[in-house]
Amino acid sequence: MNNFEFYNPTKILFGKGQIGNLAHNIPAGSKVLITYGGGSAKRTGLLDSVKEKLQGYTVGEFGGIEPNPTYETLMQAVKMVREEHYDYLLAVGGGSVIDGTKFIAAAACYTKGDPWEIVAKRAKIEKAIPFAVILTLPATGSEMNDGAVITYKEKKTKLPFGSELVFPQFSILDPVYTYTLPPRQISNGVVDAFIHVMEQYMTYPAGGTLQDRFAESLLLTLIEEGPKALANPQDYDVRANLMLAATMALNGLIRIGVPQDWSTHMIGHEMTALYGLDHAKTLAIVLPSLLEVMQNEKKEKLLQYAQRIWHADEKLSEAEKIAFAINSTRAFFEKMQVRTYMKDYDLPKEAIGEIINNLKAHNMVALGESKKITPEVVQEILNRAYQK
Amino acid sequence: MNNFEFYNPTKILFGKGQIGNLAHNIPAGSKVLITYGGGSAKRTGLLDSVKEKLQGYTVGEFGGIEPNPTYETLMQAVKMVREEHYDYLLAVGGGSVIDGTKFIAAAACYTKGDPWEIVAKRAKIEKAIPFAVILTLPATGSEMNDGAVITYKEKKTKLPFGSELVFPQFSILDPVYTYTLPPRQISNGVVDAFIHVMEQYMTYPAGGTLQDRFAESLLLTLIEEGPKALANPQDYDVRANLMLAATMALNGLIRIGVPQDWSTHMIGHEMTALYGLDHAKTLAIVLPSLLEVMQNEKKEKLLQYAQRIWHADEKLSEAEKIAFAINSTRAFFEKMQVRTYMKDYDLPKEAIGEIINNLKAHNMVALGESKKITPEVVQEILNRAYQK
Repeated sequence: MNNFEFYNPTKILFGKGQIGNLAHNIPAGSKVLITYGGGSAKRTGLLDSVKEKLQGYTVGEFGGIEPNPTYETLMQAVKMVREEHYDYLLAVGGGSVIDGTKFIAAAACYTKGDPWEIVAKRAKIEKAIPFAVILTLPATGSEMNDGAVITYKEKKTKLPFGSELVFPQFSILDPVYTYTLPPRQISNGVVDAFIHVMEQYMTYPAGGTLQDRFAESLLLTLIEEGPKALANPQDYDVRANLMLAATMALNGLIRIGVPQDWSTHMIGHEMTALYGLDHAKTLAIVLPSLLEVMQNEKKEKLLQYAQRIWHADEKLSEAEKIAFAINSTRAFFEKMQVRTYMKDYDLPKEAIGEIINNLKAHNMVALGESKKITPEVVQEILNRAYQK
Repeated sequence: MNNFEFYNPTKILFGKGQIGNLAHNIPAGSKVLITYGGGSAKRTGLLDSVKEKLQGYTVGEFGGIEPNPTYETLMQAVKMVREEHYDYLLAVGGGSVIDGTKFIAAAACYTKGDPWEIVAKRAKIEKAIPFAVILTLPATGSEMNDGAVITYKEKKTKLPFGSELVFPQFSILDPVYTYTLPPRQISNGVVDAFIHVMEQYMTYPAGGTLQDRFAESLLLTLIEEGPKALANPQDYDVRANLMLAATMALNGLIRIGVPQDWSTHMIGHEMTALYGLDHAKTLAIVLPSLLEVMQNEKKEKLLQYAQRIWHADEKLSEAEKIAFAINSTRAFFEKMQVRTYMKDYDLPKEAIGEIINNLKAHNMVALGESKKITPEVVQEILNRAYQK
């Protein structure tokens, strides 16, 4: 097992009606900016009930944070925070709103230059505005971690940043809020969480037997509950397990002491930046082909995965077990209504070259746990991922 | 799934040589009181190397915190902290030293009356001295939670207390420190951690499928790694997985949203308070008999446990599967060199009545997840636990 540090001070308030605990977790006298996305928080009445709970606070609103939140949009909020002296942020939404709010929190306090430096140059964050989250969409885990991914639209660039200063102070996770989500968002969320786990699990054995089992717990839960969530949108326990699994998939717990991959995400980010494809869809396209290409490097873990997750027949050969596991993974994504080939989304063949050029431009030329995923390997992966 | 709050701000520094990060995690200028136990920290040289790392700090020592730390001993440290104005505590040891240090941290700031009120009357803790941990014995999870159990020797009373103010600020977990532990402490630690998990898992189904799998991950890891730790004391990964498992077994993670039992602990505490038996040994005595007596209430989870943990033969009847699971549990404790009957420790038959009297005196007359474990049921459990 590798050495590690684990630290996660975000308080989770989980369950039906937890919004009742909103106000007494925000310091009295705060001037609160509520941040949200495209309007569903407004339509469902959630925004109104949040404001009602915040009686006694000075409250402002910043809506319109888009999926794959952009620097361009977020800087408008930064201006607002600075000019109107907000000292607490409250993100109401899913991963994009939360990620965007993390950027706002850090950027508003970053006065040494253009806040994009926080992302592009990994400039050190020395201060951030405290913030909390009301989660409406289980998927990214952003509600309980200190990372975010921001897109600079003009530059067609999507990059991550992180800092212990952008852990949410608390996050309210009420599964009931997810009842009204469109099926597409549930599908994406389950696939996203599943691949978050895979990025931290599907590498090589490193002696972390407990971490492996925790990761497998999450995979099994997502496989079991994901299809049920599509079939029975109002099954509370199903939604609760999904919400909890998505949070645990990326709150630092399962990555402790083990190698990580993340190449599927890096390739996927370029696909979203260039073609606007949903994050989860890009991951579902990349992962199965990546596992095929990297199966020698990942052999031991793929065999473990084949056995513990997909219960591969003992009598199969190793190669057959691995193929079975990868095919089962692809079939699970398709069952979750997420297609797994570029052509399914009408991407042009030239996309492959453009994605690779973007990866090179971002200096991502040696990806994965062993840094073996060069542009040539990405080419091979995407050739397989193009069509069946 | 039940509603829950989860909050755990303790930072974990895990792995070989993490003591190198000790000093820069303690605020500069602190006056640090190092607390430790019976002297093994001194003998192994750990105490010296801790003091070496703390050059530049004012440092004092308080040794002699005993297993099942007593109010009587700890109040001497409280006096020292108050008179000499220590403002940071550093616990070097296992669960008893850490629990004791939590009491010292809170009691030193409790001036409304006798600090025993914190335990006996659950008096509210409004302030505590910050503290950190260097863990030498994986078992109790105290290094990453906000609870402690304190014994008042004169009153023959052992009771728990807790407060968010007694989370360790950080804990150093270096598996190498456990290489020199006597086998008895490894045996006890594995059994203790195992039963911590069982207290949070072996109740009734509550829709927490993820929590169940996390709990099962811990049980499987302990079953797999425990015997290896006895056979190969210097296998780093084995010790690392045990250390991590013991921490995760009681850091709040697996109890979220699910019912809990804890009756084995409450009965076991009385056994220790009266007869000085090791904590883990009392648990190993109580649990198997408790599961036998409560098997109807716990039927569904016992069947799940029989299948997922012990791989009971599908062809067995339900009653046979349950018996198989309970027998396997007992056999595991025995394999870990922890005997499972009162008579194995030469306890007199009258102990049963005395334990029950103590439980009644502490108002513990309706224990367990369903409050069905009355003194009469405890009698039945202990009759079975007396001898084979």
